[in-house]
Amino acid sequence: MGWEQMWRDLAPVGLAAVGGGYRREGFGTAERELQAWFLEEARNRGLEIEQDAIGNTVAWWRPDGATGRGVLTGSHLDSVPDGGAFDGPLGVVSAFAALDLIRENGTLPARPLGIAVFVEEEGSRFGLPCLGSRWAVGALDEGAATVLRDRAGTGLVDVLDQHGLGLAPSTLLDDVAVFVELHVEQGRELALLDAPVGVASGIWPHGRYRFDFTGQANHAGTTAMDERHDPMLTFAMTALAANKQARLGGQRATFGRVELEPGSTNAVPRQVRAWLDARAATEEALADLVDAVLRQGRERAARDGTVLELTTESHSGLVQFDPDLVQRVAARPTGRLPVLATQAGHDAGVLASVGIATAMLFVRNPTGISHAPEEFAETADALVGVETLAQTLLAMAGTHR
Amino acid sequence: MGWEQMWRDLAPVGLAAVGGGYRREGFGTAERELQAWFLEEARNRGLEIEQDAIGNTVAWWRPDGATGRGVLTGSHLDSVPDGGAFDGPLGVVSAFAALDLIRENGTLPARPLGIAVFVEEEGSRFGLPCLGSRWAVGALDEGAATVLRDRAGTGLVDVLDQHGLGLAPSTLLDDVAVFVELHVEQGRELALLDAPVGVASGIWPHGRYRFDFTGQANHAGTTAMDERHDPMLTFAMTALAANKQARLGGQRATFGRVELEPGSTNAVPRQVRAWLDARAATEEALADLVDAVLRQGRERAARDGTVLELTTESHSGLVQFDPDLVQRVAARPTGRLPVLATQAGHDAGVLASVGIATAMLFVRNPTGISHAPEEFAETADALVGVETLAQTLLAMAGTHR
Repeated sequence: MGWEQMWRDLAPVGLAAVGGGYRREGFGTAERELQAWFLEEARNRGLEIEQDAIGNTVAWWRPDGATGRGVLTGSHLDSVPDGGAFDGPLGVVSAFAALDLIRENGTLPARPLGIAVFVEEEGSRFGLPCLGSRWAVGALDEGAATVLRDRAGTGLVDVLDQHGLGLAPSTLLDDVAVFVELHVEQGRELALLDAPVGVASGIWPHGRYRFDFTGQANHAGTTAMDERHDPMLTFAMTALAANKQARLGGQRATFGRVELEPGSTNAVPRQVRAWLDARAATEEALADLVDAVLRQGRERAARDGTVLELTTESHSGLVQFDPDLVQRVAARPTGRLPVLATQAGHDAGVLASVGIATAMLFVRNPTGISHAPEEFAETADALVGVETLAQTLLAMAGTHR
Repeated sequence: MGWEQMWRDLAPVGLAAVGGGYRREGFGTAERELQAWFLEEARNRGLEIEQDAIGNTVAWWRPDGATGRGVLTGSHLDSVPDGGAFDGPLGVVSAFAALDLIRENGTLPARPLGIAVFVEEEGSRFGLPCLGSRWAVGALDEGAATVLRDRAGTGLVDVLDQHGLGLAPSTLLDDVAVFVELHVEQGRELALLDAPVGVASGIWPHGRYRFDFTGQANHAGTTAMDERHDPMLTFAMTALAANKQARLGGQRATFGRVELEPGSTNAVPRQVRAWLDARAATEEALADLVDAVLRQGRERAARDGTVLELTTESHSGLVQFDPDLVQRVAARPTGRLPVLATQAGHDAGVLASVGIATAMLFVRNPTGISHAPEEFAETADALVGVETLAQTLLAMAGTHR
């Protein structure tokens, strides 16, 4: 039942046959197996399981004398395609381990402690990050959820239906006062600070923007270069401009997904559809970044005789975690924790947006790499994370003895 | 049975529900329906049908007194994804119409006349253009054919097996002396010359080159821009360089197909795989073009910390159609035809490579657009094409009366 045993149990689930990455797509076979593992671990500990219609789950420990609104930890179990082992599962495994540690020490929290798993956090399947937690806090309405489809064209509603799930409103978080999410760090800040664990101050605003570059399909051999309207060229220049713009501003701009039509080697494409992931420290800086990329793309489009249209597919506003809570978490008895900002969206950000007092703990990632097989945390660092999480949960819940 | 009726019969087959393009993938439902149509038209005319194992078909007319090696016309019935109506079918429909015209005039050719349909000419399914004609002339060995797979991972052998076809050697063209392919023009040269029909002098050498850009997958939010090894940037610069290089040299270079791994909006890609279609007037110019694109790509790769590897997937050498035949075709009794080079590969080029005397007729395409729904030929021009084709076939075959 210890951290290391749980980690070994999860290691094979969804591991790709080549490349060392994980394929734990939301509501897919591997992710469902992880959900079953979660329920089993919760039952083995005698926890009370609550689940909402969309599949978010909380396993509650309500020891004698624990009253009032609960203190929640946990994370998610889905991964990006060919992602790493730690993003999500580290927070869930560490949550069980922290609970075990609290129980071993014989400490009784004054409030219920819960361990949450939110579905489809990465948004890799339906294109909307933090789908599960958005649903849980009521930040996603049924109409918007109903039109979501995966790349194979299957609707979210149908996928949910296959698993006995649905879109009934969630009351899962109604009795939650505090949420503390532990997560592997997604950069090298802790490595540079030589610190095993840190605490997050907030999350940069960020969004996903679909760029539709439309030109004229044509024969790749017979069409002279100056008679083309090739949207690939407009896209290429836009991708380079986005990179340069973000580099200059200390921001983030990435084109990681592209779809072509018709997508044939011997045809000039009719359309290039590319998704920009953009992030910046403030809302204003983010808007300026996206505008600058769009403007440069459109300037090139005018030269190429193509058209560029932008659609904002998702936007997550600036999250500032509860400053008081952040300071209390940072003031750990065994030594003050460094405080970092993060550029990544998390379920913690969604919960913070509806007034739940929220904080995040990061565990050092020596490679700094995230969303890829090289993502890593030393076991020793993970165990410091477990200890820090246990202290934090008890500090939030209060104790009886 | 006239040209216009046949054209109307084919119009709905494989027409996409939106966009006006055709989806007549090799060995797919629509293409098989067109094959069935071809057999029906051939039977209605009392032609003798011969087919090789891979599915290439010739319908022969062997009137009394016709002896010796045959004169062949025809084309293909598959299309690129969302292609036009004319590329391929115009040659087949016009072949039947030319045969009808010869018979109506009561002329008897001194050699057999055949109408051919070659399978998978576009190479859109298995990545190898002129797959059928290459097999027919013995230019593709069984080992190379056996490893071909479509994007869904299905092997050519399995697809053939599903249709009762296979990879036995072909003797279909053993008795063919001459091949004349009629095709819609894929540029605007005839439109600029104000000529309904022209004859091809040859085909530029061309090839398909797979560019594998490999970097480091990473989180699109947390990874600082200068800590990335983003292969998308290397690809983008290479695509722009290819365009510029080909424009300066009056050549062709196109990236029309791109695949990403992992292909997730919120991940810096690990790999961008892109296919270059390159064409130039001489072998030396083609090699120089590809080298220049590769060199510029590798220069950028060094800056991006990525790696660029090139794989030549196919190469088609310079084709010069039989100069004597070209001149005889051009010297049409009703007025001399313009002679053009073409940048597109055709089954005619494959047949020319094994010593079959080969020529091509082009029918004016007012839009100049090819491999897209806007590809077009006026019926009046197509009928001039039919008449020219009939004259050419008789000139090649000789006549009895």
